[in-house]
Amino acid sequence: MLPFARVSILGLGLIGSSVARAVRQAMPTVRLTGYDADPDVRATALRIDLTDDVADSAGAAVTDADLVVLCVPVGAIGTVAGEIAADLPAEAVVTDVGSCKTDVARALALALPGIAVVPAHPVAGTERSGPEAGFATLFAGRWCILTPAADADPVAVERVASFWRRLGADVETMTPEHHDRVLAVTSHLPHLIAYSIVGTASDLEAVTESEVIKYSAGGFRDFTRIAASDPTMWRDVFLSNREAVLEMLGRFSEDLAQLQRAIRWGDGDALFDLFTRTRAIRRSIVEQGQDDAREDFGRAHGPDA
Amino acid sequence: MLPFARVSILGLGLIGSSVARAVRQAMPTVRLTGYDADPDVRATALRIDLTDDVADSAGAAVTDADLVVLCVPVGAIGTVAGEIAADLPAEAVVTDVGSCKTDVARALALALPGIAVVPAHPVAGTERSGPEAGFATLFAGRWCILTPAADADPVAVERVASFWRRLGADVETMTPEHHDRVLAVTSHLPHLIAYSIVGTASDLEAVTESEVIKYSAGGFRDFTRIAASDPTMWRDVFLSNREAVLEMLGRFSEDLAQLQRAIRWGDGDALFDLFTRTRAIRRSIVEQGQDDAREDFGRAHGPDA
Repeated sequence: MLPFARVSILGLGLIGSSVARAVRQAMPTVRLTGYDADPDVRATALRIDLTDDVADSAGAAVTDADLVVLCVPVGAIGTVAGEIAADLPAEAVVTDVGSCKTDVARALALALPGIAVVPAHPVAGTERSGPEAGFATLFAGRWCILTPAADADPVAVERVASFWRRLGADVETMTPEHHDRVLAVTSHLPHLIAYSIVGTASDLEAVTESEVIKYSAGGFRDFTRIAASDPTMWRDVFLSNREAVLEMLGRFSEDLAQLQRAIRWGDGDALFDLFTRTRAIRRSIVEQGQDDAREDFGRAHGPDA
Repeated sequence: MLPFARVSILGLGLIGSSVARAVRQAMPTVRLTGYDADPDVRATALRIDLTDDVADSAGAAVTDADLVVLCVPVGAIGTVAGEIAADLPAEAVVTDVGSCKTDVARALALALPGIAVVPAHPVAGTERSGPEAGFATLFAGRWCILTPAADADPVAVERVASFWRRLGADVETMTPEHHDRVLAVTSHLPHLIAYSIVGTASDLEAVTESEVIKYSAGGFRDFTRIAASDPTMWRDVFLSNREAVLEMLGRFSEDLAQLQRAIRWGDGDALFDLFTRTRAIRRSIVEQGQDDAREDFGRAHGPDA
């Protein structure tokens, strides 16, 4: 028995379009409706047959839904929830895919009183954006974190969990506050640092931008992938998860200052100790299937690269 | 006509063993001799038939060479050069693959007076280490930077350039000082930051290490690859290129503080502007063939990942 029969996806970017493709593959009998605020994205969705229907407004997209998946930047979730409130069937379940959960859970509860809301965050993505960037296996083997309110309907929570498991994800549940601290360190801080160093590198006088690009294979190119992520999405993440990001950033800056001091004073042992410790974490990530076991992420090497 | 006929490789880790494999493939008639200070590495090199000979000492490895490639951590280059000085044929050319060049060029000139020295840095690598981690196509399409002294013999420089081109690399020449500033930003600073954030993430109280590993697909895992690089090599890099690394780190810290302030004060426009600017650099890196054009570095997605 499928957890939902009529799924509406609002926001058809990388994640929304991946949800659509994954639903098509895993639950082909589900009736899929899509909507995006951008008319060009709606036209693309129609052209590539992403969903069974593409609605002309957020409200029209949800009138018949038993699950609504909000796949818009976290800063827009409250607004979109407000737009659908009047058209939403009373028994529909609403979920989202936002990278921050405290703010989002609050905004959804406020905009949709009486509706079963189960906020979710599939920890998956690539640096690409838009309806054509998605693919059906994006969530396979990745974690999806649910952050239901303490008094949420357990049946609705289990249906949303079942939905994500069918898309290939493993499901975990935690409070929105804990989610926001975990993701601040595993996702938001890495993005902030990547954006920052790419900015620094493009602003030097002694080294030209063309040199930075030319010699990027020494490590820099890894950061540019992350720093190519969607600007609107990430602006909203930092504004929404401000407290946790600032806390993690403060710790990181302290640790970096300590490394800076070790370099200045030639303390090779301190450097060696840290560099040895960090290796083990990589090993665990690969062992737990959270990254490609092949060297260099499986990047192509050689003349055919 | 081959630039060299008898090549000795000292240090048989990732880079040294990749040079050996690339020479075998590109110049099969070259007589290859290998040496490593670690007896286990020498035994592995013999077992996997990495070079035609494996010598028992650094001196014995070079007695017959017309090119010596030093593939040891930059902190050991001066010592190894001293060990081979007495046995080195007068007409041999010496090069290296170190990631820092000012210190290395000075150490080589001091240890090998009268010898043609052409310091080199192939900007290529993976997070793996050791003689079995290397592969023949590591340098294909990557840049190799030569930093010969102003009064270096142009014939020796051209022979070393030709050697690297035959291994698939594109060759560029610059001063050691400029090299060290360019690589400080494109390689050394990214490694320092990656090591630092992985250290920060493993030292939290509110978030456990197992959570960090579990949810690493949100961005963190990209940093752990770099932070799994060889600890000895990287300790030496930071001690050797101290000035340039500290300068770039200072600029990065300033820029990060500005981002921190933008987050604290909710300045979404400043965040959005930076996040838009950094996208273009990624595009250029991919266009210039310095990274995999496939999304997510070509990482495997889905159940077979």
